[in-house]
Amino acid sequence: MSVKERYIVGVDLGGTNIVAGAMPLDGSREIAMHTTQTLADGGAASVVDRIAGMIEQVIAQTMSETGAERSDFLGVGIGSPGPLDREKGVVIVTPNLGWKNFPLRDEISSRVHLEATLDNDANCATLGEFWCGAAVGGRNVIGMTLGTGIGGGIILEGKLYHGASDVAGEIGHTTIDSTGRRCKCGNYGCLEAYASGPAIAERAREALRGDESESIIVSMVDGDLRKITAQTVYEAAKRGDSTAREVVRETARFLGAGVSNLLNMFNPDTVVLAGGVTQAGDALFRPLRAEVKRRAFKPAVEACRIVPGALPLSAGVVGAIATFKMQKLGEL
Amino acid sequence: MSVKERYIVGVDLGGTNIVAGAMPLDGSREIAMHTTQTLADGGAASVVDRIAGMIEQVIAQTMSETGAERSDFLGVGIGSPGPLDREKGVVIVTPNLGWKNFPLRDEISSRVHLEATLDNDANCATLGEFWCGAAVGGRNVIGMTLGTGIGGGIILEGKLYHGASDVAGEIGHTTIDSTGRRCKCGNYGCLEAYASGPAIAERAREALRGDESESIIVSMVDGDLRKITAQTVYEAAKRGDSTAREVVRETARFLGAGVSNLLNMFNPDTVVLAGGVTQAGDALFRPLRAEVKRRAFKPAVEACRIVPGALPLSAGVVGAIATFKMQKLGEL
Repeated sequence: MSVKERYIVGVDLGGTNIVAGAMPLDGSREIAMHTTQTLADGGAASVVDRIAGMIEQVIAQTMSETGAERSDFLGVGIGSPGPLDREKGVVIVTPNLGWKNFPLRDEISSRVHLEATLDNDANCATLGEFWCGAAVGGRNVIGMTLGTGIGGGIILEGKLYHGASDVAGEIGHTTIDSTGRRCKCGNYGCLEAYASGPAIAERAREALRGDESESIIVSMVDGDLRKITAQTVYEAAKRGDSTAREVVRETARFLGAGVSNLLNMFNPDTVVLAGGVTQAGDALFRPLRAEVKRRAFKPAVEACRIVPGALPLSAGVVGAIATFKMQKLGEL
Repeated sequence: MSVKERYIVGVDLGGTNIVAGAMPLDGSREIAMHTTQTLADGGAASVVDRIAGMIEQVIAQTMSETGAERSDFLGVGIGSPGPLDREKGVVIVTPNLGWKNFPLRDEISSRVHLEATLDNDANCATLGEFWCGAAVGGRNVIGMTLGTGIGGGIILEGKLYHGASDVAGEIGHTTIDSTGRRCKCGNYGCLEAYASGPAIAERAREALRGDESESIIVSMVDGDLRKITAQTVYEAAKRGDSTAREVVRETARFLGAGVSNLLNMFNPDTVVLAGGVTQAGDALFRPLRAEVKRRAFKPAVEACRIVPGALPLSAGVVGAIATFKMQKLGEL
């Protein structure tokens, strides 16, 4: 008689979307991966409803696909924007969801009658890449998620590192230019103020001033520069637009300064970059690696791969499942 | 019958001085702490001679003071400038000593017939403060030693963190201004290019240009600005010199940007600053803490003490003893 497979459900809660799915304990495959809108305006109770509904849907589909029983599900790992109190399972504050001191873990747990764990979304995304994605085989891994903001996750000696009060890994808010651009966080010269999606769009608008007729970006947004997003810039760069290409190269230089700081400080074996910015592909990664080689120490550069994430849609869910497994079973 | 005390000898090898001493296993006190000149020009063999001689002197004095026997000495912890290959006990390269691939650990070990361990000097200094100094009680501790360069040591979850290839903690070479001052390492805008001893002296010279008659610094160096050191600046600031005070305040701002990066990245409970710069006392630490409060995330600021080192002369030796204890006995 073969040993029965056990499953863990993962939830990746974001300001825009919720993603959920399941995996067997060994992380060998993703099952029943689904996405739905968060609709945070409906309030916390309604978001909990939607998450609980998705979990039930994932469980039902997994049972139907694998022949598993409900008792084969060990629990639910949840990834959420932070800061969090992991021990208490509480979301301390998330501007994007409008929550304060919300006991997300226990709300979900009591709704689906399963144990649950809670960790930061960027930590989960990094752990997902470490367990099943681009950072497999690494031991000291830094993950950066580049989107509306720049989030970070840190894995040291094979384990998520959380810091003294669970707020480690704010890589987006490390200073690369102490007298530079004002950041939303109040600081000056944060990496996020140069290389987040909105920052990339803003730098493109600045680059276009007085030079609009030369770039296809302008027609891509029907002449309304406010409509420019980072996505527009990557797309234009791919089509060969020189303004867009320069913005991408500049992004690589700023990211290169930030990643070099990570290399000189952490001496990681892997840096994984995830999020929309990676759509720029080699146009970004080639100058980024060159900039890091110029800036960081040679032994740190030689020890480190800089790679795009391999799980663009599911890293957060896979990582939430991995955090549950780590916290409850003590190993991955 | 009482249990016999056992002892470990520590050696802190620097470009200018060698410091050595002993401690009982429990780290309760320093015994036979001595300093001598390195005289690196004499070559590696002669430096090994001097170190071996100091170790014998420390052992003899400890035996005479405590009644211990030679068999009560467990071994020797050595701290050396890096980069190192810790596992092989080899100093890969140190510009200050002029060594390349020198098997320092085994050379010492075979001379004194005791087991030995080797670790980076900045790591040792941080571990010394963690075991017996200003960072006692901490768990996630970053140490910075500000001197000719800026070295760093990282203790996470109570253990030294070395990174993928033993070069983690190069805090002096994190960028705080990506288009700023050229650093000796080849990068631009490294913290070390602003806040090391020579950088502080250079900024004082710049501040004095066209304004020499106003500052007591000029008379302190007999009118020869090349003679200015960081020490001169701290001394002049203590005496109330306004140019010197502004240079110290600026130093605090640069250090504040660097320390803020550490807080947002590592979320440590303790940052220990050691080295000459701490002689500036509150004139440095007050604006430094204020700058960090302005720049870093509130929960990271609230979780972290920023303190001067408590073992200005012996941190490196105490930490070298602690690394031996950690490596050989598995705990502190």
